[in-house]
Order: sequence, then structure tokens, then C-alpha cells
Amino acid sequence: MPAERPRLLLTMGDPTGVGPEIIAAVWADDRVHRVCRPVVVGERGVLERAAELRKAGAAIEAVAEAELPRAFDRTSPAVMPCVQLRAPLGRPGGQAYEAVTLAAGAALDGRCDGIVTAPLSKANLQAAGHDYPGHTELLAELCSVDDFAMMLYLPPGETTRCPHGLGVVHTTLHTSLRSVFDLLSVDAIAAKCRLAHAALAAFGALAPRVAVAALNPHAGEEGLFGDEERTLIAPAVQRVLGEGLNVTGPWSVDTLMGRAAAGEFDAVVAMYHDQGHIALKLLGMHAAVNVTLGLPIVRTSVAHGTAPDLAWKGVAETEGMIA
Amino acid sequence: MPAERPRLLLTMGDPTGVGPEIIAAVWADDRVHRVCRPVVVGERGVLERAAELRKAGAAIEAVAEAELPRAFDRTSPAVMPCVQLRAPLGRPGGQAYEAVTLAAGAALDGRCDGIVTAPLSKANLQAAGHDYPGHTELLAELCSVDDFAMMLYLPPGETTRCPHGLGVVHTTLHTSLRSVFDLLSVDAIAAKCRLAHAALAAFGALAPRVAVAALNPHAGEEGLFGDEERTLIAPAVQRVLGEGLNVTGPWSVDTLMGRAAAGEFDAVVAMYHDQGHIALKLLGMHAAVNVTLGLPIVRTSVAHGTAPDLAWKGVAETEGMIA
Repeated sequence: MPAERPRLLLTMGDPTGVGPEIIAAVWADDRVHRVCRPVVVGERGVLERAAELRKAGAAIEAVAEAELPRAFDRTSPAVMPCVQLRAPLGRPGGQAYEAVTLAAGAALDGRCDGIVTAPLSKANLQAAGHDYPGHTELLAELCSVDDFAMMLYLPPGETTRCPHGLGVVHTTLHTSLRSVFDLLSVDAIAAKCRLAHAALAAFGALAPRVAVAALNPHAGEEGLFGDEERTLIAPAVQRVLGEGLNVTGPWSVDTLMGRAAAGEFDAVVAMYHDQGHIALKLLGMHAAVNVTLGLPIVRTSVAHGTAPDLAWKGVAETEGMIA
Repeated sequence: MPAERPRLLLTMGDPTGVGPEIIAAVWADDRVHRVCRPVVVGERGVLERAAELRKAGAAIEAVAEAELPRAFDRTSPAVMPCVQLRAPLGRPGGQAYEAVTLAAGAALDGRCDGIVTAPLSKANLQAAGHDYPGHTELLAELCSVDDFAMMLYLPPGETTRCPHGLGVVHTTLHTSLRSVFDLLSVDAIAAKCRLAHAALAAFGALAPRVAVAALNPHAGEEGLFGDEERTLIAPAVQRVLGEGLNVTGPWSVDTLMGRAAAGEFDAVVAMYHDQGHIALKLLGMHAAVNVTLGLPIVRTSVAHGTAPDLAWKGVAETEGMIA
């Protein structure tokens, strides 16, 4: 039933990064075309060079944005339709920004079913005058959404015993560690617990077991090493428990991650970027998928520097969410 | 050559914790007695109950501190000599403190060759009026040492491809995350680089490859997410490079830990407790050993809540450091 395969827009990411090469390499993988109809948003010349580099056989076919809904029917292992960007090649941040904006717009008005983003450079984005710390925050603004979160997701498999996979939702993300303290609040932590619950419920968990990480070592060691566990995290857990969610914590994060991977929890709510990323990248660098929660559109991303065929296994898994 | 087996004092740790049980269970393991002569510092009654619980056959034999050098010759799988504590049983923090103090004193004046500490509760320690955030800081004060660090060490084996094992040295440790910023300095980071270098050199690495972790996500993303990478960490790396050490960084910590485990580095200098602990506990919860660097005495520790026979494999490995 080819007509039912979801239409995915792939943003090329930063042209100086690994994005074009990854896209070229995965295009040759039949599994990709069996589960979806992909179209790239990028720079034709860059993709042609990437295809040569990776000895991918696909012909790059430039299409206009206006051709978008139809372009999904022309995609195949031999043909890579590419919506050509207008931003100049010498301005990588401008190109990356335009690709994400165009793809999000198409997803919002139903011209595609989801978007998959290749890595972009935050510094190049900023240099081009687009002041977003990352994909997640840019997409939230494009979709006019306040309540969102970045989740790293590890599908069920070798590295986790969680029956529905393991999601790690970040309360704060692309910000200095020093600024985390001002950004944490009972409201913010409770909101991420709800997003984590909803995401794992969508992945099939009946009553997702959500564990909330502590901020301080040893979960604050009963108040000796910081009090955010008592003043912020425990009250947030109480609040969402009162809403009927299956949430526990705060848990000391160094042992929590192993317990979660062993199958004790379906999702972890992390307080800051590296807390979640250290664990998920160690557990499954190649299988982890980046999912933006709370958006009205479906967006996933390959993990930075990921092996193409494993990364795309991850994308295939997220099609369950589309269903 | 039984006379050459090192004489190790084992502190019982918090009597309400898993320490006594772990000690009772490992006593029955012949490998322990083949590599060392252990004597416990603890509470006889507690150890007897622990031995019953774990069905360990050893008879607990109370010895006075004055008998210490000779007591090492009486130890065997069937006999567990125990230096009896004076602090009352109802005051677990007081007992844990006395055990560590007594053992460190014996190590300092040569009445034993090293000490192995079972877990203690920092909150119980504090409740008993001993204001130390943990073992490491208490031992540093008992030894009158300013320049010390806690290293988690994973011996070479299944979970790491590092030929001499992987050490993670912590620049800050038992302190709130909020206080980390005031404690980090070029001096402090450079000092931990030197300790990491010396430790892995002692473990056999000819020119230990020391990697320094960033503090902020994406290593600060070129200054967008915090500036400690530029103002503190890079200058510290430059300083120790100037001293001839093989040091690199700051590296984004989420990918660094996987690279280190894959064999690219011999040691990692982490900026705060959970940065190092999340990774090492995921990589080798049961094999990781806690080593205090910079002390004039040899001290190792079982990892909290660890499986006894694996934890003791770890201790056997550290005997290489004594040699």
C-alpha cells in the first residue's frame, strides 16, 4: 500500500556537517523506502557531492516548494527529490534555518506527515542571525507552542529491557549549566512529567512509569548537598501524582539510569541536558532518536554523528507514533 | 608467600547499610584470602548477624586495636578478626566515623598496607556530629592532604577497551550542583589532571591520555551555553600541557564518555559528581572501584550497593597499585 506510507520531509541540516552525507547514504537503504516516502529540503549541489562521496546511486531532482505534495510520489531509491533552498550556500546557518522553517510549515498545513531533521550547528544558526539554541526551540516557536520538550528515545531492543522503549525527557536543554537553576520550577518539572507520560502512552505503555531525576548528587543527600529535591522536584512529583500519573522521584541520577535501562521505568525526566544525554548516548548512541514532544507536528531527528542504518531503524520505530 | 599478601583493614561502614552483609559474604570467597590478609574494623554483633544472614561460616573474633599488626596473621576464610568499635551501636554515624579514623591511623603509621571502606551514610555521619560530606573528604583531613580527588576506576575488561582501565577523576564531588561554579578554578582542574595522570601511570599507562570534560552542554557551543570552557577548562588544559602531560579537552561530556570507554582515553577529568558517576555506573556498576587519589595511604572502596564477588574482583585489581 504505497499510498499509505507517510510523507516525510528530511531537512539537510548544516551543509558543513554530516547531514548531507547521512541523507545520501540512507537513501540507498531499501528499508527506508518501504516505510516512508522521503523528500529532502536542501541544496542540490551539496547533496550531489554527498551522493558521490558515499557512492549512492540516486539522482538528485530539484523540485519547487509548490510541487511538494506531488513530489512525494516521485521519490524512490533511484530518485531523490530535493526542495531547493534560496539562502546562499556560503551561509550555512541561513540554509539550515530555511530548511527547518519550510519543513515545519509544510507539516503544519498538512503537505507532509512529519519531518526528520539532520544535525545543524547552533553557532552557525546564531551567526546567520537566527537566535535559537537548537532545533527544539526553533520548532516550538514555528508551531507557536509553549509547552514542549526534547526527548531522547531508545527503542526496545538490546540496550534496554523496557517493553515500550525508554524515553528521557529534558526539563532544561540548550542552556548553560549555571542558568539551569533559574529555569527549574515546580510548573516546568510537572509539565515535563505530563509530556513524558503522554509520549510513552503513545508508544504503547498502559500506565507509563515515569521516574524524575534529582538535580544534586545523591539526590541532595537529605538536604546536605542542595535543596532543589525538596523545594522543586518532590512538590512537582506530588502534583502529577494527584493527577493520577504513575510518577516517582526524585531519584539519585547515577543509579537511576541503570535501573531505567534494566526495565524498571518507561521514562525519565532529566533536569538538564547532559544528565539525560550522557546516559542515553552510552546506552545507545546509534539507536537513540531525538523526538520533540508537545508539537502539533511529528518531528524526529537522527542522533548527532550516528551510524546511518541504525539511525534509520530508529526512525522506522517512530512511525508507530504517527499511527 | 602468605607473608607478602598485603594487610588490608576493612571498615564496616554504616551498620544500617549493606556494608556488614557485603563483608560477611565476601569473606567466604577464597580469592580474597589468596590476594590479601583482611581484618575488619566494626561491631562484632552486627557482623555475626550479617554472617548468619549470608550463611557465611566465618567465626568473628574480637581483637583489640593494640593487637593489630599480629591480627593479620590470624585471618582466614574460617576466622574474621574484628577490631571492636567503642562508639555505641545506636549511633551509626559515630561507628562509621570511628572505623575510618582508626583504619586511616593504622595505615598512616604502617600497621596495615591499605584500607577498604564499605559504604557509609553521609547524613548519619553528619547527625553524629562529624561534618564531612563523604569518605574522601574525611580521609583527606585525617591524612592532612589538600590535593586529593575521588576517582571511579573501571578495570580493563568487558565494559571498557582501555588497556589499563578507565579512571574518572572528579574535580568537585559531594556538594550541591549550584556550588560547583564557585569551586571550579584553573588551579583545581589542573590539579585533578595531574592526579589523573599519576594514577593511570601507576596503573601502567606510559603516557596516560587524559581527557577533560566540559561543564556545559555541547562544551558550551562556542560560548553560547556558558563560558567556563573558555575561562577555566581550556586554560587548565594549556597549563598541564605545558608541563608535558598528554591532556586534551574540554570535550562535550555526552559523547566523551563513550569515546573513553571505547579506548580513546585512559582517564577523564569530570567537573562534578554526577557527570562522572552516571557514566561509570552505567558502564560498570558492579566492577567500578572508588579510589582516593593524593593520599599517602592506599584506600579503595566497593561501589555502593555492588555485587560482592564482582566488587572484590575490583579490589584485587587495585593491588597492582600497592605493588
